Amino acid sequence: MQLGFVGLGRMGLNMVRRLQEAGIECVVFDTHLEARREAASHGATAADSIQDLVARLDGPRAVWLMLPTAVVDVVLDQLTPLLSEGDIVIDGGNSHYVEDLRRAQALSKHKLMYVDVGVSGGVWGRERGYCQMIGGPEPAFKRLDPVFAALAPGVGAAPRSEGRSGEPSAAEKGYLYCGPNGAGHFVKMVHNGIEYGLMAAYAEGLNVLKNANAGKQQRTADAETSPLEHPERYQYDFPLGDIAELWRRGSVIGSWLLDLTAAELGRDPTLKDYTGRVSDSGEGRWTAQAAIDEGVPVPVLTAALFGRFTSQGNELYANKVLSAMRHSFGGHNEIKTDNKG
Amino acid sequence: MQLGFVGLGRMGLNMVRRLQEAGIECVVFDTHLEARREAASHGATAADSIQDLVARLDGPRAVWLMLPTAVVDVVLDQLTPLLSEGDIVIDGGNSHYVEDLRRAQALSKHKLMYVDVGVSGGVWGRERGYCQMIGGPEPAFKRLDPVFAALAPGVGAAPRSEGRSGEPSAAEKGYLYCGPNGAGHFVKMVHNGIEYGLMAAYAEGLNVLKNANAGKQQRTADAETSPLEHPERYQYDFPLGDIAELWRRGSVIGSWLLDLTAAELGRDPTLKDYTGRVSDSGEGRWTAQAAIDEGVPVPVLTAALFGRFTSQGNELYANKVLSAMRHSFGGHNEIKTDNKG
Amino acid sequence: MQLGFVGLGRMGLNMVRRLQEAGIECVVFDTHLEARREAASHGATAADSIQDLVARLDGPRAVWLMLPTAVVDVVLDQLTPLLSEGDIVIDGGNSHYVEDLRRAQALSKHKLMYVDVGVSGGVWGRERGYCQMIGGPEPAFKRLDPVFAALAPGVGAAPRSEGRSGEPSAAEKGYLYCGPNGAGHFVKMVHNGIEYGLMAAYAEGLNVLKNANAGKQQRTADAETSPLEHPERYQYDFPLGDIAELWRRGSVIGSWLLDLTAAELGRDPTLKDYTGRVSDSGEGRWTAQAAIDEGVPVPVLTAALFGRFTSQGNELYANKVLSAMRHSFGGHNEIKTDNKG
Amino acid sequence: MQLGFVGLGRMGLNMVRRLQEAGIECVVFDTHLEARREAASHGATAADSIQDLVARLDGPRAVWLMLPTAVVDVVLDQLTPLLSEGDIVIDGGNSHYVEDLRRAQALSKHKLMYVDVGVSGGVWGRERGYCQMIGGPEPAFKRLDPVFAALAPGVGAAPRSEGRSGEPSAAEKGYLYCGPNGAGHFVKMVHNGIEYGLMAAYAEGLNVLKNANAGKQQRTADAETSPLEHPERYQYDFPLGDIAELWRRGSVIGSWLLDLTAAELGRDPTLKDYTGRVSDSGEGRWTAQAAIDEGVPVPVLTAALFGRFTSQGNELYANKVLSAMRHSFGGHNEIKTDNKG
Repeated sequence: MQLGFVGLGRMGLNMVRRLQEAGIECVVFDTHLEARREAASHGATAADSIQDLVARLDGPRAVWLMLPTAVVDVVLDQLTPLLSEGDIVIDGGNSHYVEDLRRAQALSKHKLMYVDVGVSGGVWGRERGYCQMIGGPEPAFKRLDPVFAALAPGVGAAPRSEGRSGEPSAAEKGYLYCGPNGAGHFVKMVHNGIEYGLMAAYAEGLNVLKNANAGKQQRTADAETSPLEHPERYQYDFPLGDIAELWRRGSVIGSWLLDLTAAELGRDPTLKDYTGRVSDSGEGRWTAQAAIDEGVPVPVLTAALFGRFTSQGNELYANKVLSAMRHSFGGHNEIKTDNKG
Repeated sequence: MQLGFVGLGRMGLNMVRRLQEAGIECVVFDTHLEARREAASHGATAADSIQDLVARLDGPRAVWLMLPTAVVDVVLDQLTPLLSEGDIVIDGGNSHYVEDLRRAQALSKHKLMYVDVGVSGGVWGRERGYCQMIGGPEPAFKRLDPVFAALAPGVGAAPRSEGRSGEPSAAEKGYLYCGPNGAGHFVKMVHNGIEYGLMAAYAEGLNVLKNANAGKQQRTADAETSPLEHPERYQYDFPLGDIAELWRRGSVIGSWLLDLTAAELGRDPTLKDYTGRVSDSGEGRWTAQAAIDEGVPVPVLTAALFGRFTSQGNELYANKVLSAMRHSFGGHNEIKTDNKG
Repeated sequence: MQLGFVGLGRMGLNMVRRLQEAGIECVVFDTHLEARREAASHGATAADSIQDLVARLDGPRAVWLMLPTAVVDVVLDQLTPLLSEGDIVIDGGNSHYVEDLRRAQALSKHKLMYVDVGVSGGVWGRERGYCQMIGGPEPAFKRLDPVFAALAPGVGAAPRSEGRSGEPSAAEKGYLYCGPNGAGHFVKMVHNGIEYGLMAAYAEGLNVLKNANAGKQQRTADAETSPLEHPERYQYDFPLGDIAELWRRGSVIGSWLLDLTAAELGRDPTLKDYTGRVSDSGEGRWTAQAAIDEGVPVPVLTAALFGRFTSQGNELYANKVLSAMRHSFGGHNEIKTDNKG
Repeated sequence: MQLGFVGLGRMGLNMVRRLQEAGIECVVFDTHLEARREAASHGATAADSIQDLVARLDGPRAVWLMLPTAVVDVVLDQLTPLLSEGDIVIDGGNSHYVEDLRRAQALSKHKLMYVDVGVSGGVWGRERGYCQMIGGPEPAFKRLDPVFAALAPGVGAAPRSEGRSGEPSAAEKGYLYCGPNGAGHFVKMVHNGIEYGLMAAYAEGLNVLKNANAGKQQRTADAETSPLEHPERYQYDFPLGDIAELWRRGSVIGSWLLDLTAAELGRDPTLKDYTGRVSDSGEGRWTAQAAIDEGVPVPVLTAALFGRFTSQGNELYANKVLSAMRHSFGGHNEIKTDNKG
């Protein structure tokens, strides 16, 4: 099977390697010559341009886009007139599913099929395989089955669930047809929303452990500082790296994220190389907004999201308002330096 | 009527002045000579020591403590042996109500009565009067009625509620017997918990208005930065001082806190004199902990509390954990400088 | 001055009365004959149709719409072709400000001006006046000044802020030009977002007080029920109506919402006539979504919003998932009846 | 090695079996004869009473308590006088670590050592092994090493973390000495706090997916119901069981909790056998309270906790207050039936 592949960044290149290894012939393009050369070194056919890429594919074609969200529409505009009835375009990036609805409609006017795929796996995907959440016309999904199967981890990546037997389903292999267009990115969006929540749960818990020695520190005894009533209860210096490692076996909270955390904390439990400025890249926001549209409460997911906004400094004015109020009603002056010195 | 009064800080001195003006004879003490002199200049009798203060009071005595939480027990230890059966000690500071339970029991062994009073009013109290939430033995409350009435704002401070007529109740004058010991500080604790929530609601809303020009700013278009899909919707530069002023009349969200905020923002809507480091002084924490004991959800009150903790820098380690995780699964590097420069 | 006014519901009729009393001649229309008649009984001129209403107004016209959000566009479609260059349409309902941007652009093609006004005041507005947040072309705002001034509470509705003197500004009278189109509804949206937060802060605090007798109740001592470690600390039966009344005078948390709450709790502190199903009507959602777009953390405002979603039953499936998980890892069975039995 | 074991409930019995299989001779007691008989059928020695149990153990003894929190002190009172200097008591239940501090001090007066062990593993522990978080005197920990090792999953239960090599540490086998008394239950407490957060993150995300068909439902168009602006975006009927299964392979959010969830949803994605009443058993509360004492923000963990309180019906009065306010300022009546009707 043949596949066009545009976008050879961190993710894209690894995916092409996995596809080639599984016998899918990739015709690839990227604006960076270097990236094309590396793909070629792994057996892919490097095209010189989008036109060239389309020309090198036999019909009916399928072209997978693995691009920054902002660039997808630009490439689609170039690609669309070059394709023919029955061809498929796949967006495997992190698009908002609302964009999928619009794009699918636009492409259907040219009798092209559009498939949206949410891909999870990060930098580990080449080795572990990619979990794929797929939306679009079902015939397109079926035609692309070998591609999805090649990228997916396969059933062996986890023990089968109780009650599952016989020929493994696609879901059990790590890819799933989730519904009409947008369904793939919708499920991926929620996946990332959950990811934010899981990450924050570990981070908050570890922070409670980190500060379990609060009773050892001297506190100022003024009206501006809340007293610690029982300092004798907060005298622990916990070995955080070992604790994360410990929880990996036999506990209820074992997970892949914990595996990674244990490795990081094993190297340096103080995490001194990090400043704590946490980016967010869209999906967490979209999940919250979808939940609000639906009227579904997501207090944990938004708390995780807002923690990131705050790490970016965006709570600043709100805090100034609080300080101004406190000054105004109580004559409270801000303490200029805090515990963290 | 006579009242002993220990503690002439910001609050205490103002309270003594209000009491003296209402004809309550105050015998006062404070370790600072200066404060005693100022109280005396307003007509109070300054004692040289706790012993002297007790000696100058006719029995049955009543001594009001207006002290930092950490000092209350120290003074109580001095005071207790000097008092006689039937005397009353009032704690008007910000004690945790759990301390009241312990103290009341200890004093009752000496046949002394203990009264806990939560006092709200801040630096404005001398002029506006003090709202008083009172717990303890009911006979003590009754004996002290003139004191509470003198400190309270009086019924004229607000229009009477629909359905209230005839002789105004104590609650309508601004003081209330809330129940047995601890009841006064319990109600004050929750009062402050609510205050945190109210303040945060205004602060968050004003922050949304402040950032309504987000669409005017250039955003980096990389995988680490969430795109603003509709910059044209965020092009407003709002006059925050005027908006706070506006809301004071006719709107649903008018309040005394808003009055103060409008004055602050009227002076300087950028609040450049504040850094945004917001202290907390115990009651917000105790409210949250009481709610948790009761099994009562208080998501708004804890969100407000946690905002303060974060302003103090205590979320730092949690954020480093998040950065470490993101680096580990996605190869994401922290953006070292953020929007706030 | 003359004003067309379409929509004579609860709000609209009261506004027309206030306008007529201030000498603004209102030409009104509503599909309900009854409502038109009532407006006429207060001096307004009742039109038989939108056409009739437009015909009865001298140019340049101004027509105020006070309609359910879903109907605004329908009426606009009827109204637009009947108007002439320089006429003004005002939307005083609860539209999303994003709709304003679209509508203003559409009307500008017909050389009509569009003004969006967020109106606060509820059923009390006729008596207290209406707080108005205004967006649109500045010349339109200026032309309509007498209308806004007539509806506004006036400077006397609150003491002037410290630092404000001389001729009162519009903001001090209760109306404000907030910026270009959408600005009025944006500020109103955030106003309501804040309102949700304020309401929830009071509600949560009162709930903590309500449950301060938790220690009096018998608890089952099984592994499914969290033990109350100190029942002796939760023995209070608080007089909630009196407490709300108390806080109205001299406390930091006094507000108009508290005034209303005190009246309600004064009538019946158990609130037995309410079931606790709390609607939301859009602005709280939009505020949260705008904050998320801006990257501004609003944990208090969303907690308040999610509380409403939950009161509507929308958390149900999430809770079933939790029960399923607990059953799965711990063999925990759901307790079928809870404390509230 | 010999071990006394008191408490043969769900957890206790499984632990005894695992211990016996590993060659630890257990002398067991439980008030239920049945449970003693079952333990005996697996090779344990059943004692007739606490006295008998102590008598059957050679010194220095070690007795493991696996009891409901409320019963621990009762049994300790019986046990303490029967033991001799140097004996060890282990509390493996879910005690609050603050109780450990008190108990350890009390036992040390009798020259007994107290060890607190937080045990995770649930009903799966016999098969998977138990993750153990251990606090107390280090010599006691060392003496009990074979017991902990027998209960632990062993290093093979998970791939070794990058950077770990050589002889596996105890943490890598699934048990860890965390520090002085209380440390074990402190870490277990936080472990469970994290568990609440993780569970809620999955549950909320799945609820967003479940309601992704919101656009298919008819909504009332009244002022009490928030309009869904884009129903076309919420037309998905997602296969929730398959999605949970899908995420188990290759995704970032894989975990043991997800494994269990996938099995549950695989059986019945509607979860119709559950009502959604979610108990909490203490640790989530204690984690939140410890975080508040430390001044550490835990918005995700408390959101998860409050979700449980709400599922138990404890938000009711707060919601009634909201309804009363809305009625009071806006004349809003409650909608008596909601969507979930």
